[in-house]
Amino acid sequence: MKRLLFVLALLSFAIPSGAAVREVTIHAKSLEGNLLGEPADQKIAVYLPPSYDTSTKRYPVVYLLHGIADTYAVWTDTWKIPAMLDTLMKSGAAREMIVVMPNGITKALGSFYANSPVAGRWEDYISAELVSYVDKNFRTLARPESRGVVGHSMGGFGAIRMGMHHPDVYQAVYAMSPCCLDFAEDIGWGNPAWARVLAFKSLDDANKALQQGEFYPMAIIAFSQVITPNPSKPLLADFPIRSSHGELLPSDPTYTIWRDFFPVAEAESRRENLRKLKAFALDYGTSDQFAHIPVATRRLADRLQELRVPFTLSVYDGDHREHVVERLRGIVFPFFSANLKFED
Amino acid sequence: MKRLLFVLALLSFAIPSGAAVREVTIHAKSLEGNLLGEPADQKIAVYLPPSYDTSTKRYPVVYLLHGIADTYAVWTDTWKIPAMLDTLMKSGAAREMIVVMPNGITKALGSFYANSPVAGRWEDYISAELVSYVDKNFRTLARPESRGVVGHSMGGFGAIRMGMHHPDVYQAVYAMSPCCLDFAEDIGWGNPAWARVLAFKSLDDANKALQQGEFYPMAIIAFSQVITPNPSKPLLADFPIRSSHGELLPSDPTYTIWRDFFPVAEAESRRENLRKLKAFALDYGTSDQFAHIPVATRRLADRLQELRVPFTLSVYDGDHREHVVERLRGIVFPFFSANLKFED
Amino acid sequence: MKRLLFVLALLSFAIPSGAAVREVTIHAKSLEGNLLGEPADQKIAVYLPPSYDTSTKRYPVVYLLHGIADTYAVWTDTWKIPAMLDTLMKSGAAREMIVVMPNGITKALGSFYANSPVAGRWEDYISAELVSYVDKNFRTLARPESRGVVGHSMGGFGAIRMGMHHPDVYQAVYAMSPCCLDFAEDIGWGNPAWARVLAFKSLDDANKALQQGEFYPMAIIAFSQVITPNPSKPLLADFPIRSSHGELLPSDPTYTIWRDFFPVAEAESRRENLRKLKAFALDYGTSDQFAHIPVATRRLADRLQELRVPFTLSVYDGDHREHVVERLRGIVFPFFSANLKFED
Amino acid sequence: MKRLLFVLALLSFAIPSGAAVREVTIHAKSLEGNLLGEPADQKIAVYLPPSYDTSTKRYPVVYLLHGIADTYAVWTDTWKIPAMLDTLMKSGAAREMIVVMPNGITKALGSFYANSPVAGRWEDYISAELVSYVDKNFRTLARPESRGVVGHSMGGFGAIRMGMHHPDVYQAVYAMSPCCLDFAEDIGWGNPAWARVLAFKSLDDANKALQQGEFYPMAIIAFSQVITPNPSKPLLADFPIRSSHGELLPSDPTYTIWRDFFPVAEAESRRENLRKLKAFALDYGTSDQFAHIPVATRRLADRLQELRVPFTLSVYDGDHREHVVERLRGIVFPFFSANLKFED
Repeated sequence: MKRLLFVLALLSFAIPSGAAVREVTIHAKSLEGNLLGEPADQKIAVYLPPSYDTSTKRYPVVYLLHGIADTYAVWTDTWKIPAMLDTLMKSGAAREMIVVMPNGITKALGSFYANSPVAGRWEDYISAELVSYVDKNFRTLARPESRGVVGHSMGGFGAIRMGMHHPDVYQAVYAMSPCCLDFAEDIGWGNPAWARVLAFKSLDDANKALQQGEFYPMAIIAFSQVITPNPSKPLLADFPIRSSHGELLPSDPTYTIWRDFFPVAEAESRRENLRKLKAFALDYGTSDQFAHIPVATRRLADRLQELRVPFTLSVYDGDHREHVVERLRGIVFPFFSANLKFED
Repeated sequence: MKRLLFVLALLSFAIPSGAAVREVTIHAKSLEGNLLGEPADQKIAVYLPPSYDTSTKRYPVVYLLHGIADTYAVWTDTWKIPAMLDTLMKSGAAREMIVVMPNGITKALGSFYANSPVAGRWEDYISAELVSYVDKNFRTLARPESRGVVGHSMGGFGAIRMGMHHPDVYQAVYAMSPCCLDFAEDIGWGNPAWARVLAFKSLDDANKALQQGEFYPMAIIAFSQVITPNPSKPLLADFPIRSSHGELLPSDPTYTIWRDFFPVAEAESRRENLRKLKAFALDYGTSDQFAHIPVATRRLADRLQELRVPFTLSVYDGDHREHVVERLRGIVFPFFSANLKFED
Repeated sequence: MKRLLFVLALLSFAIPSGAAVREVTIHAKSLEGNLLGEPADQKIAVYLPPSYDTSTKRYPVVYLLHGIADTYAVWTDTWKIPAMLDTLMKSGAAREMIVVMPNGITKALGSFYANSPVAGRWEDYISAELVSYVDKNFRTLARPESRGVVGHSMGGFGAIRMGMHHPDVYQAVYAMSPCCLDFAEDIGWGNPAWARVLAFKSLDDANKALQQGEFYPMAIIAFSQVITPNPSKPLLADFPIRSSHGELLPSDPTYTIWRDFFPVAEAESRRENLRKLKAFALDYGTSDQFAHIPVATRRLADRLQELRVPFTLSVYDGDHREHVVERLRGIVFPFFSANLKFED
Repeated sequence: MKRLLFVLALLSFAIPSGAAVREVTIHAKSLEGNLLGEPADQKIAVYLPPSYDTSTKRYPVVYLLHGIADTYAVWTDTWKIPAMLDTLMKSGAAREMIVVMPNGITKALGSFYANSPVAGRWEDYISAELVSYVDKNFRTLARPESRGVVGHSMGGFGAIRMGMHHPDVYQAVYAMSPCCLDFAEDIGWGNPAWARVLAFKSLDDANKALQQGEFYPMAIIAFSQVITPNPSKPLLADFPIRSSHGELLPSDPTYTIWRDFFPVAEAESRRENLRKLKAFALDYGTSDQFAHIPVATRRLADRLQELRVPFTLSVYDGDHREHVVERLRGIVFPFFSANLKFED
């Protein structure tokens, strides 16, 4: 997630100087015919490690997923990750790997990297079509033990679900400050933004609110289109909250469908998949401005412990964004260096 | 807590027909000189049981505390509790007791029945001056084992703290859907209302927002004046949340002071007091519209269990208000009938 | 559960003086052919309320389940429940109902009121055959809303599972100090009794240990015969714990099967059934000598809260047995009086 | 903790070939006059990094604490840590540091690295006298940011308490499978070993049981001598558990003193100290044979989260000992390399 004013300026992409990043457009069948009109032609950015052009080696691949209201430009431009990766790999602090940065943005701010009849089958696109494209077009080690996925915020949510659903694709998963793991705090019914959503008559109303700086209503709509899509409704979704005499209340059965969708609940039925992961890490800052993130991440950790699923949880002092680059450098890429299988 | 439109009409008091309710005004030294200008002369309503006027018996006393933005008229007028009590006691479903209904409202919507240099020492007023007045002026059993306290929402919060601090005054405590037991959900930093509060320049700003139907900002201010009062600030309080680039973050050290103030944290140091209570009950509805209430009440129950403090927790299907009268009748007054000591 | 020395003396049954208790033997097809040789002819005790013989009324029925190593004589003889019920119903403190007391004991100390190819299908016997017999032979209100089930310890475990599986049979459930809701403490792998079990070569070994006062090994075997029965093994069960170099360790996959069997885990998939119950209560004493009971009961309460299943949890000061009679009188039978449907 | 048979063979010390380990005896005033007669002259082993003898550099120091029933020989002899450290530091996978290995064993199996009038003031010895000796006699970086402490099992317990009490001494703390963080499982009252302890008339009885392979009774006595020492009692301690009619029950007020002693409870009052640590890590294996370790470590993690104390928790597949060396090599020493301050 990121500040709105900033978001709206991010629609052009620049190539970082120096580091080898290839931007290409691929066609995603999984996104064809979605109801939001999201393009099935998707741009991706592919970072190639320093030795790529001068060797014949094959490399592990890490898929790096951005947050809501962002694009991969947050990695390539805002946070200069390619240059950081060059330095890191040249120093030996991380081993050489390919880093693939897809987009996950939609008109409603975010795809959540999930399948939806409204926004398109983003999970299928990322976990199958994109992986297949990359393995065909780059010198990858095309096997699960050499593939990782990491994301921040909405991307962390996506990374966890990729691990839960596709341990046969990715074997190392890192979720940085993952959003949306459970009903809690600012995404629970305590957030008055639900009242705004319930008052909207059309997606146009939601767009107008967004343009005036209201982030939550559109984010809520996007998430609803994933969990309880309903093409026959004006906002293309059912909502788990209803308004009664001006106050917000949970609305069954949608509320229960939501509860069961959240990764904290889904972990139970995905235990065997989670146990197949070679490495699974979570982190969050104690001062995250999205108040549900510390609460729901700790709930997931509790559930993993009950299920005897191995994991590492790091809790640090900081907010949602201030340590992201530093942690990618000092912790996340070293994590993949230690946990992916490299060519011998 | 209650709906705002309704609240603003509640400033006149009516006497319920039939049941014996005496409304009197008492002077509370504890409220003198408060900074909000709340009157030290306070009205109370006293329900007398059916046999009161025709016997010389002494009776146990239950103190009944209303929620934020309400007055005792919610009991006497809105919910017709005196008539309900008459029926209940005449049928034998509850034993005869006196029920005292003080006010806990302030210009900032609620005193939280706590001591504050800003709003006045409400806890002292209720737990000492009021009890002393009632024991002098009515035929009470003036001993802790014959005194109970029950409240709803802000009143439930008050009842819990009365039990934690004054087991020598009250020995049976019932908290119905207690608010404000911990930072969570709609009173955590996930609620955008904090941004409103932080933007206010004066209490006038807060009043204007209140008149336009915004409940949370004023409630937050009232609570802040209790936990971290600061007479030198425009809103007479420090706040535990700050705004950074348009986003909300916890603000230390105030945030930590708040965390330690909440009953979930305070329970630890009040364990011996809590163990002195003869009966301690909590309840909430799973669909409470104040989303922090289910979460924080369950946290209190967890903490009580760790501390080996006896209690009963009832979780029922329903929202914040819809079952209050029914539960007072079927559960709460029978609870006091079973747990208070009556004259033999 | 109860003290062993005491247990072994309980094999003869006495009829309590005064109160109307009929002891009859019924044939349970569900128990035929079990591998332990438990008799399919089962004695039961049926308490009839004071007015039963002088009226033509129909009454609600409460099924009362005893703990491990006991028989229904613990109710009729040790704790004189029929006389207590007479007093209670005559005073009006509880309404008139029939109370049915089956046995749940086996050669391995307890059936857990569950179905097992080793010990017999006790759940089917209790929830179907017994109910059917009682409805045919007594003037019952033969409908779920007039049927309740309560048990203590192993009986509390049984009551919870009856509620989870058969809300169409019983609509009010009370579990007193229920055992065995989750792996924890004295039934977790921290209990050295597992080492004893793993060293046994035959049920004879287990019987010898039992006769020398070792309670846990036989109880563990009985429970194993329910959860992971295995007629081809000497103790007729697989065990979730193994011994390695003299130390105990969880043993998969059996350990995982156990974990999923426990009511704390099963609650998730039984949510809809649990929501059908009209009333569901749990209690325990903070000093229960079976250390897993406080821990696992609180875990069940936490899970129920997550699932938004209504319940009441009472935590009181006391041990496993000292308040059972007092709570049956003051809390449990009043609970059924309030929550069962009586003839109008 | 370790297997008893093994333990008893460990009373002679051997110097590992190759790596530079100096074994010296220092005098600990803090241990003088203890009631168990533990020697105030204590042997320690000091590992010096590869370049130590050929440079004039100063090095960070890590204090490495062994488990119950062990001595530092478990590091130097059993697990060959010095040779592993040489390889690790020469390869650059960990930076060069001094590793100090004191003893923490007593006649009652373990000092818990805590102060006790019975066993001596081991916490003072380790955190003050030993540190002072090492800083005077070796080329150390004598400052908190260059000092770390790590321990396994009882040593992990010690490391956590060192961090809680002495952030001015150590700024990086790693607890591997820490024992004894809370009452739970095999150290809760569910363990029948309490019955053995309660039956002992003297320490001789305990010694005899130990020699016959009973580990828990003596370990319980040692811990009791730390938490509730009582020199006037035969076993030199009060116990938090009592026996009633052959069953175990919590015994107040000792039980409550214990509960408050455990790090899970103490963390609350040590929050400010814990926040001063630069890095704090915990781990455990899901199959730890000491069943309280997973449960109590997760409770500590939950408490740290509530207190907003930064930490990292790693949960891995494995038992109490099988991954210790591998984790020291791959995770623990790299952790100190990353989190201690080295000479620039």
